[in-house]
Amino acid sequence: MIHRHLISTSISSSSPSAFLGQDHLCNLRRRIVLHRVKKSWICKCSAKPSADKTAYKTKVSRNENMGKLQAGYLFPEIKRRRAAHMLKFPDAQVISLGIGDITEPIPEVIASAMAKRSKSLATIKGYSGYGAEQGEKLLRATIASTFYANLGIGEHDVFISDGAKNDISRLQVLFGSDVTVAVQDPSYPAYVDSGVIMGQTGRYQNNVGYGNIEYMKCSPDNDFFPDLSSVSRADVIFFCSPNNPTGSAASRNQLTQLVQFAKDNGSIIIYDSAYALYMSDDSPKSIFEIPGAKEVAIEISSFSKYAGFTGVRLGWTVVPKELQFSDGFPVAKDFNRIVCTCFNGASNIAQAGGLACLSPEGLEAMQEVIGFYKENTHIIIETFKSLGFNVYGGKNAPYVWVHFPGQNSWDLFEEILEKTHVVTIPGSGFGPGGEGFIRVSAFGHRANVLEACKRFKELYK
Amino acid sequence: MIHRHLISTSISSSSPSAFLGQDHLCNLRRRIVLHRVKKSWICKCSAKPSADKTAYKTKVSRNENMGKLQAGYLFPEIKRRRAAHMLKFPDAQVISLGIGDITEPIPEVIASAMAKRSKSLATIKGYSGYGAEQGEKLLRATIASTFYANLGIGEHDVFISDGAKNDISRLQVLFGSDVTVAVQDPSYPAYVDSGVIMGQTGRYQNNVGYGNIEYMKCSPDNDFFPDLSSVSRADVIFFCSPNNPTGSAASRNQLTQLVQFAKDNGSIIIYDSAYALYMSDDSPKSIFEIPGAKEVAIEISSFSKYAGFTGVRLGWTVVPKELQFSDGFPVAKDFNRIVCTCFNGASNIAQAGGLACLSPEGLEAMQEVIGFYKENTHIIIETFKSLGFNVYGGKNAPYVWVHFPGQNSWDLFEEILEKTHVVTIPGSGFGPGGEGFIRVSAFGHRANVLEACKRFKELYK
Repeated sequence: MIHRHLISTSISSSSPSAFLGQDHLCNLRRRIVLHRVKKSWICKCSAKPSADKTAYKTKVSRNENMGKLQAGYLFPEIKRRRAAHMLKFPDAQVISLGIGDITEPIPEVIASAMAKRSKSLATIKGYSGYGAEQGEKLLRATIASTFYANLGIGEHDVFISDGAKNDISRLQVLFGSDVTVAVQDPSYPAYVDSGVIMGQTGRYQNNVGYGNIEYMKCSPDNDFFPDLSSVSRADVIFFCSPNNPTGSAASRNQLTQLVQFAKDNGSIIIYDSAYALYMSDDSPKSIFEIPGAKEVAIEISSFSKYAGFTGVRLGWTVVPKELQFSDGFPVAKDFNRIVCTCFNGASNIAQAGGLACLSPEGLEAMQEVIGFYKENTHIIIETFKSLGFNVYGGKNAPYVWVHFPGQNSWDLFEEILEKTHVVTIPGSGFGPGGEGFIRVSAFGHRANVLEACKRFKELYK
Repeated sequence: MIHRHLISTSISSSSPSAFLGQDHLCNLRRRIVLHRVKKSWICKCSAKPSADKTAYKTKVSRNENMGKLQAGYLFPEIKRRRAAHMLKFPDAQVISLGIGDITEPIPEVIASAMAKRSKSLATIKGYSGYGAEQGEKLLRATIASTFYANLGIGEHDVFISDGAKNDISRLQVLFGSDVTVAVQDPSYPAYVDSGVIMGQTGRYQNNVGYGNIEYMKCSPDNDFFPDLSSVSRADVIFFCSPNNPTGSAASRNQLTQLVQFAKDNGSIIIYDSAYALYMSDDSPKSIFEIPGAKEVAIEISSFSKYAGFTGVRLGWTVVPKELQFSDGFPVAKDFNRIVCTCFNGASNIAQAGGLACLSPEGLEAMQEVIGFYKENTHIIIETFKSLGFNVYGGKNAPYVWVHFPGQNSWDLFEEILEKTHVVTIPGSGFGPGGEGFIRVSAFGHRANVLEACKRFKELYK
């Protein structure tokens, strides 16, 4: 019923706004075919060449890799569904614990540094134009000394980005279409989607995923760490710890296994540590804590979830000089060429903010923000535990991974939204292995988190 | 002699800093082969698999497209040579009229808006996290109404970027490896280099360029507008007007021919209008001033050269909803998917600056900045004219294109740098058609421009 509603909304809408928002629906005289797959309706669209003789069409073929993408990128799709819900229930107080977006202000000391840099750009002395594509020297050095002291990572191994997601795509461009890729299943969807776009994958199969991707199952059964003995070799292994969405962090022993696995196979790990500072136990905060990792790993990270920089846009990527392709060519040299050609550095104002984040006051302020969200996580975990659910994650990450065995994630998402007006994320949005789970984000104002938990208790009492 | 010096510097250097800066030199037990090509020494490197048995190598093959790139990206290469020159002449007052980088401060009204937004991010009311990947609604609408009023371009056709160069790469990812590409020769090197990286081209041939790229010659002989009757069809036509580096702008009549050419061939024009506000005559400031262009063109633009935003990072791309692939699928829908997957929006602080740029005070302030650089342009043009050179560009763009018939651009670049300590850009860096030219940028403090011109007069009197 809900899905039918969404589909008819889409078809009848013809405003440009709707046009751009509805990635998952094919435009232009589309045939809508409804397949009942398991418990959910899925909208399949076949883009038929338009029969409209008056519309001019170029002779440029659509990139077939783009056509392989099954749906819109997950988070805009969630936003779209949230907006549709708000249209349907205009008076509802909708609470978003969906997209992992920061809600608390940026600490004063950090925002002030950005304001200061902004103002100084209006002065002859303070003005700066193009910076180094790799980022400002001082920020690179400070990231190296703050996060990688004694790990053999220096200033020149650190590349400043405008966010981890954007460097994931730049890394995919670097590797090109001929590599094979492995991902944790479930995992952050940018890994797979950018691989599809680059042509690394085959077609999509329902409940299986894209062809030519090695999905490494991560579930309660294996403590959310893949059974590497059953994983096929891939050139590139995306590995996120603490994991988005499951919230679990790999232990030192597990990461040692992972590095050994990469070494045995000659693979490159792209290690996503965007939530490292949320860790409560002593699991490694960086892959480079594992001996030998510099020869097999790249690390991507971000200020987004530490300093409220989701809108400011700042992250970094470590490509150690020791990492080499099979012919001995350093990966960092090619990444540098990509960064110089496809990027022009992060905003200088954001970089001033990044530097302030790493000052003693900034680090303390970030820890306070992180502590606040960890309290939120605790509230959410206790709520679902009290309702008898099996709950995972939370301890080392701001995400709670709630198990609804045998249920369809998108149905659950819609049911929770419909009945509680709380936005979550369906686990299957992160890959087939997420089916039967819901991700609840701890990013929210305290009052909203408490209210959402109250509503969960009413729904599931 | 100069080149020998540079080469030996490179070989002897082993610091990580040098490592990342020396893109054009292959690392690791490289064989240096010097070829005398025309008048210049070119350093050819063959990356031999390292003979160092102790260094671990992964089994991931290097992306062969990366290996096709002939040299480092042009502008970092210029920066590197400038740095080498400063090492050699530590007491010289080096003046940079090379990379087109802004030197004058950002107008107060614009910088203040960014400072205000930065500060407001520290407040509960003013904080914002992830924005729309496509950019803030008000900024999109204001760009549409400021630059495209009455041209049928609306808010939803405008995508905010972190700079034109970055969206060039994202467009290349959108089109993929199977398209053919045409470029003006000479042209901004990001078009070709990003195409090489995406695998659209063949190998490089000296003085010819990369295989499978249609180089559309633009020279004084054809008034810097290609003879379209001799241009082969390409899927994608990059066209920059006012042109970087030649400084010439295509007339309405010429652009009408270009649009007709694209329509006849079913091509898509990627029109780069980053210098449009520098125009003095009534040539079109947007390709969408040409009837029918919305069905065949994308336009990329930037705040960089108007508001001093080269370090702040803000631009935009217009993908009209009318633009369709051969199967009728809207290009904008795929671009939206790319923007959502590979990008996360420009910095919210930069976007606040962009909005201030388009306020009445901001527009006026930008016009003042532009006027200042246009005066610089005039000074440079008059200098070279007085010395008897044929000089092009300048009238509609902040670049002066000086002809040195029969001479090698890199030799000229080195000679000018050595004898005047002024950094320019060798024309051949923009493609084989730029051989025999030097690009002199008008971005500079007035005193520096005057001093550089004095030195030019001494050198060429």
